[in-house]
Amino acid sequence: MTKIPRRTDDDCTAEAAADRREFAQRQTGVALEHVGHTSLDPATLAGNIENFTGVAQVPLGLAGPLKVDGEHAQGDFYVPMATTEGTLVASYNRGMRVTREAGGIAVSVIDDAMQRAPVFRFASAREAREFGQWVTHHFEHIKERAEATTRVGKLRDIEQYAVSRFRYLRFNYTTGDAAGQNMVGRATEAACQWIASQYAGIDRWLLSGNMDTDKKFSRLNTLHTRGKRVVAECILPDRLLRERLRVSAEDLFAQRQISNLGALMAATNNNGAHSANGIAAVFIATGQDAANVAESSSAIAHAELTAEGDYYYSITIPSLIVATHGGGTALATQRECLEMLGCLGKDRANKLAEIIGATVLAGELSLSSAILAGDWVTSHETYGRNR
Amino acid sequence: MTKIPRRTDDDCTAEAAADRREFAQRQTGVALEHVGHTSLDPATLAGNIENFTGVAQVPLGLAGPLKVDGEHAQGDFYVPMATTEGTLVASYNRGMRVTREAGGIAVSVIDDAMQRAPVFRFASAREAREFGQWVTHHFEHIKERAEATTRVGKLRDIEQYAVSRFRYLRFNYTTGDAAGQNMVGRATEAACQWIASQYAGIDRWLLSGNMDTDKKFSRLNTLHTRGKRVVAECILPDRLLRERLRVSAEDLFAQRQISNLGALMAATNNNGAHSANGIAAVFIATGQDAANVAESSSAIAHAELTAEGDYYYSITIPSLIVATHGGGTALATQRECLEMLGCLGKDRANKLAEIIGATVLAGELSLSSAILAGDWVTSHETYGRNR
Amino acid sequence: MTKIPRRTDDDCTAEAAADRREFAQRQTGVALEHVGHTSLDPATLAGNIENFTGVAQVPLGLAGPLKVDGEHAQGDFYVPMATTEGTLVASYNRGMRVTREAGGIAVSVIDDAMQRAPVFRFASAREAREFGQWVTHHFEHIKERAEATTRVGKLRDIEQYAVSRFRYLRFNYTTGDAAGQNMVGRATEAACQWIASQYAGIDRWLLSGNMDTDKKFSRLNTLHTRGKRVVAECILPDRLLRERLRVSAEDLFAQRQISNLGALMAATNNNGAHSANGIAAVFIATGQDAANVAESSSAIAHAELTAEGDYYYSITIPSLIVATHGGGTALATQRECLEMLGCLGKDRANKLAEIIGATVLAGELSLSSAILAGDWVTSHETYGRNR
Amino acid sequence: MTKIPRRTDDDCTAEAAADRREFAQRQTGVALEHVGHTSLDPATLAGNIENFTGVAQVPLGLAGPLKVDGEHAQGDFYVPMATTEGTLVASYNRGMRVTREAGGIAVSVIDDAMQRAPVFRFASAREAREFGQWVTHHFEHIKERAEATTRVGKLRDIEQYAVSRFRYLRFNYTTGDAAGQNMVGRATEAACQWIASQYAGIDRWLLSGNMDTDKKFSRLNTLHTRGKRVVAECILPDRLLRERLRVSAEDLFAQRQISNLGALMAATNNNGAHSANGIAAVFIATGQDAANVAESSSAIAHAELTAEGDYYYSITIPSLIVATHGGGTALATQRECLEMLGCLGKDRANKLAEIIGATVLAGELSLSSAILAGDWVTSHETYGRNR
Repeated sequence: MTKIPRRTDDDCTAEAAADRREFAQRQTGVALEHVGHTSLDPATLAGNIENFTGVAQVPLGLAGPLKVDGEHAQGDFYVPMATTEGTLVASYNRGMRVTREAGGIAVSVIDDAMQRAPVFRFASAREAREFGQWVTHHFEHIKERAEATTRVGKLRDIEQYAVSRFRYLRFNYTTGDAAGQNMVGRATEAACQWIASQYAGIDRWLLSGNMDTDKKFSRLNTLHTRGKRVVAECILPDRLLRERLRVSAEDLFAQRQISNLGALMAATNNNGAHSANGIAAVFIATGQDAANVAESSSAIAHAELTAEGDYYYSITIPSLIVATHGGGTALATQRECLEMLGCLGKDRANKLAEIIGATVLAGELSLSSAILAGDWVTSHETYGRNR
Repeated sequence: MTKIPRRTDDDCTAEAAADRREFAQRQTGVALEHVGHTSLDPATLAGNIENFTGVAQVPLGLAGPLKVDGEHAQGDFYVPMATTEGTLVASYNRGMRVTREAGGIAVSVIDDAMQRAPVFRFASAREAREFGQWVTHHFEHIKERAEATTRVGKLRDIEQYAVSRFRYLRFNYTTGDAAGQNMVGRATEAACQWIASQYAGIDRWLLSGNMDTDKKFSRLNTLHTRGKRVVAECILPDRLLRERLRVSAEDLFAQRQISNLGALMAATNNNGAHSANGIAAVFIATGQDAANVAESSSAIAHAELTAEGDYYYSITIPSLIVATHGGGTALATQRECLEMLGCLGKDRANKLAEIIGATVLAGELSLSSAILAGDWVTSHETYGRNR
Repeated sequence: MTKIPRRTDDDCTAEAAADRREFAQRQTGVALEHVGHTSLDPATLAGNIENFTGVAQVPLGLAGPLKVDGEHAQGDFYVPMATTEGTLVASYNRGMRVTREAGGIAVSVIDDAMQRAPVFRFASAREAREFGQWVTHHFEHIKERAEATTRVGKLRDIEQYAVSRFRYLRFNYTTGDAAGQNMVGRATEAACQWIASQYAGIDRWLLSGNMDTDKKFSRLNTLHTRGKRVVAECILPDRLLRERLRVSAEDLFAQRQISNLGALMAATNNNGAHSANGIAAVFIATGQDAANVAESSSAIAHAELTAEGDYYYSITIPSLIVATHGGGTALATQRECLEMLGCLGKDRANKLAEIIGATVLAGELSLSSAILAGDWVTSHETYGRNR
Repeated sequence: MTKIPRRTDDDCTAEAAADRREFAQRQTGVALEHVGHTSLDPATLAGNIENFTGVAQVPLGLAGPLKVDGEHAQGDFYVPMATTEGTLVASYNRGMRVTREAGGIAVSVIDDAMQRAPVFRFASAREAREFGQWVTHHFEHIKERAEATTRVGKLRDIEQYAVSRFRYLRFNYTTGDAAGQNMVGRATEAACQWIASQYAGIDRWLLSGNMDTDKKFSRLNTLHTRGKRVVAECILPDRLLRERLRVSAEDLFAQRQISNLGALMAATNNNGAHSANGIAAVFIATGQDAANVAESSSAIAHAELTAEGDYYYSITIPSLIVATHGGGTALATQRECLEMLGCLGKDRANKLAEIIGATVLAGELSLSSAILAGDWVTSHETYGRNR
């Protein structure tokens, strides 16, 4: 059993990475040649990776133009998607074409919050309830302690959830252009330490009691937002659907009912088709945290037939976590992708959220239509690997 | 509005990719230099990407050695993790060390199934019920039609779910070393076409009615498995926990109760800590479909204090979707990572599933301990970006 | 602190009840005069109540005629409903009228199973998996032991659910005209004792591991039925809806979409309106276990607009627990109500299930229409208490 | 097809009831003799029932004394339970004895709210978001309109939930000693009519969009309370458990873990044992709405082993709907039962909630212990019907 080598002074270097690739080869007999092929400057990676050894190259395709009518994103965008799944880019591309021809996708960020949810235990439920009142009355003090740790994060409010002799507090912050999980962790820890110093009778507290709910889908996040809450909407003329996708508005709508019913029965985190596909692909391309696909892939599809017989289609993404600053956004390839979208830098997180929301809607429309028109399997035979 | 260029004859070439990067620069003003820096041979990418333009480089670190006591994976493994989130590799590495010192992680694949779930509508619920009986009686015929489309896939059984005048059938297949979503789509479509030709009275059918539930967490998958159902287990001596993680078995156990309660209240897809982190990182490194983080990140943590006061800890992953063939597994960097794990090629999918299961458990232990010991925020300050 | 008096030899007598009423008066100062007013013969109550003290009188109204087109219930029924909630009977009555005028409600029992779900713990997940295989191979032996304890109950199959080092078995029985919870408890206990005597390596077992899920709503029951799975269906002509309920088919359908969406967001056990109302009222009137409202009130509403513009409406009740034998069915008032429905005695449980299914649909239609037409509040002002 | 007779002027009379019983006999051949046997004064029933025909007599037993340490209920109570399920009263009685010997059950009402949740549709998600802001700014005006309709109800706050182009508002009221569903319906309708008259751009609104969630379990209610949120707690000495229930604190705790796991897997509305039993029985005895068992039976069990090896046990009931005024509380038998508990009249709803909370905990303890000690089946053979 041999430990992975580390060079103590400056570990995120080309040399240290080479050491580790050599080490891996010695241990496993496999040369990591392609893994070592990178244009990333190791000096830029401190804070992104430990035991840096090289890179995974993920194929990247462009889809679009995607016509977006947002409050932050306006116009046509070429969307970079990094994936290894054949058909994915083609399918999103097809949806982007149809929605573009329909006049584009209206999209809005309707809520915004990042959480850390500590929990406090007391001797009894009654004491826990009293603590809850104290927290409400001391909100301004708590806010002050939390915000003292960050230039960007603002404590919006604190939700309270009560069970047994516990009080779970859910601190809601806005975090600017960062995803903010670490920022709100630090801020909430400071706030909790102050609370613990002020309030007698706390039996025990933890910085997270699993009501945040980080890297996890939850009904709570669906109700109360984590990251951005994004709604994308589009009205697709029946004529256009028939022409481009070989389905009618009425059939799409009937299928939506059946998908709703199936999702209800299966108790899914998403009554739509495959938003995880588009989200994962854009996340990897733009330096978002791919683990957040867990919660960001939750979605609520809702459709209506208009009086004119056209198809109103909307996707609500209740917990889309995006950043245009921090995380992987500064890495060379990811940065280029963000720049291409005009989403690098300050005050761009909402813009990126809108572009992703619109992308998701385009992909939902495309896959739903393919299932309906019987194109699903054949398209994978055209584009995908023959398995 | 300009379309992304395509060269009709052979589109997945270095030249076509260069065309598109130029096009992107003309359209957006951004040069995709790093995106163009790749050692992947475009000829190997047909079936993985459309509109191939370049790659996203995702930093890769090694964690381990991870000591695995599986039925397919035995011994020490160096686990490649591709991520942009500082602290992640360090945290998993820490968990691997402690579990290794505890004697390693026992892990088993306890179920295996990949689904496609078509839906059939009838004039009434009664007719839908009769159809269900017909399906049961004609299972062997249906199986024959389905399996005629694939060398590898085997139709295990068909679950039936009834609501209103619909019958949702959930075809369960084993798919060898492939993840199998496309394979089971093709097989099920063939089966459904045969059914539709044989059974009068089907009002309408769709190849998917959202009970598969592809790229989505669902209670149904938690109960009945999608991909591999993996359980990882470890007994951590109290002494070791105190020494290495500065927590006691008893405190970890008490914390688990609180996390269970929080997860129950929030109604999460996972009562554990952050399995999405480890899964996403290994998925990207080994060419798995990152969108499957949506369902693969579901997990059930269960802990017990042993009679000796040590910590029995287990993670059940009910829908872990992994492949060692097909998808992104043949790409150059991903292939190297799979080879390093001894997971490339035939009869290796269970081995990879076991390694990922053990990885997840190591990471759960590490993060839980960090929250408990108050190391969480400080470790992110050490390893993460200063935000 | 004084114990409630018991006469040891024959406790369920008029005298013992009088003793207890006197005792209550001494202890609390309140005379239980009305509670003592009963025509039930105490001799018939052994097995229904302990510390028998009298009765609660619940007002009973008739609704109907309800036109049922079932496989067991055919024709018009006057439905006894016991409730204290003003408007309830009137509302169901209204729905019965409209559905009658629409030609009646088609209703079918499409599945039938009563469960006990023991759990077995092992040293490891792998051993739990092996046990599962053993159970599958020994199904006939297990069935024999279970069925030896009952004349009526038949063990249909055993589902298996795996998590950590546990194996949860869900024994599915048919139980004739009884609800069967006790019957399946006894049968499963006998089966488990045999299993425990045959299979080495069981660490611990419990007769219930909370996957039955008795007196509780669960997603599992929604998927796999507990008691009867009943679907009621009706096509309501648009013209009739406008005339009788002052709503159009189209508006009802649009409202259904909104109710589906709200229910999805709130994560309810029922996307319909108020099936618990009808179920509780008929349950109390007919001697069913009112606690089973917990699981029986779960329902799935599904509507469609037909090509003719009429309203197809269906209710699926996945876990309706009814009996026409045992429980409270033999009590004097309850027996009269069952007789009035032609549901007392052998082979009548499905008939009762169908009548209740149809009742629920009638009530759903009525309340939905009232909300839509703006009659909801005013009707409560007409019929309900002024609060 | 014959209509149920109604006497137009004064329909809730003994004569009208007799008419209907005769009518039922003519139609069905069954004499409703026992149904006609009632001491309820029909004049008191207007507002409780339509088509009054008689009563269902539900057997009533006393359990107790139950030792309650509440903020409103203090001391020993004899709890009236109306049920037809043998063993139920005996089981609760047993739990009351043990908890009494343990010093009683601490219980608190920690939250209180009754809802009506209208929904508003707009042309787009952006307009729905703007409306949400308007509602926030006009809360005082809305409150004024709502409260103008009721002497008792107070509008506490309005939660907002956003999806697609809808805004669901959840009006939270306190309603004094009434359950309050009708009261809040009327108040919210008045508020909505005012809103609709003031705010341009509302496409359509409905008084309920299924986020209330009346007569339904929901995750939303579990998080945010409907009716009273009650926590009951008790510390059971290990010695006492062994003596009285033949189980140890440690075994009970281990069983709780297994029940938690089973409930998590099954996705239940309650991780406890059978709170619906106690709630339904007390609800029927005291004139509560039995349909509310649907939501009131939701519960969260949480246990801990204390440092001394004793058993801390708590039950949180997030949506217990109780009244001591209105509904069925004034009926003769129900009124006697409420009086016996000291719960009739003004400012008694919290007291009743506490008594029910304590009752539930007693019953949970008893059934859990019976399953663990292997008494479950045999006790039903002693007390229950032999089926």
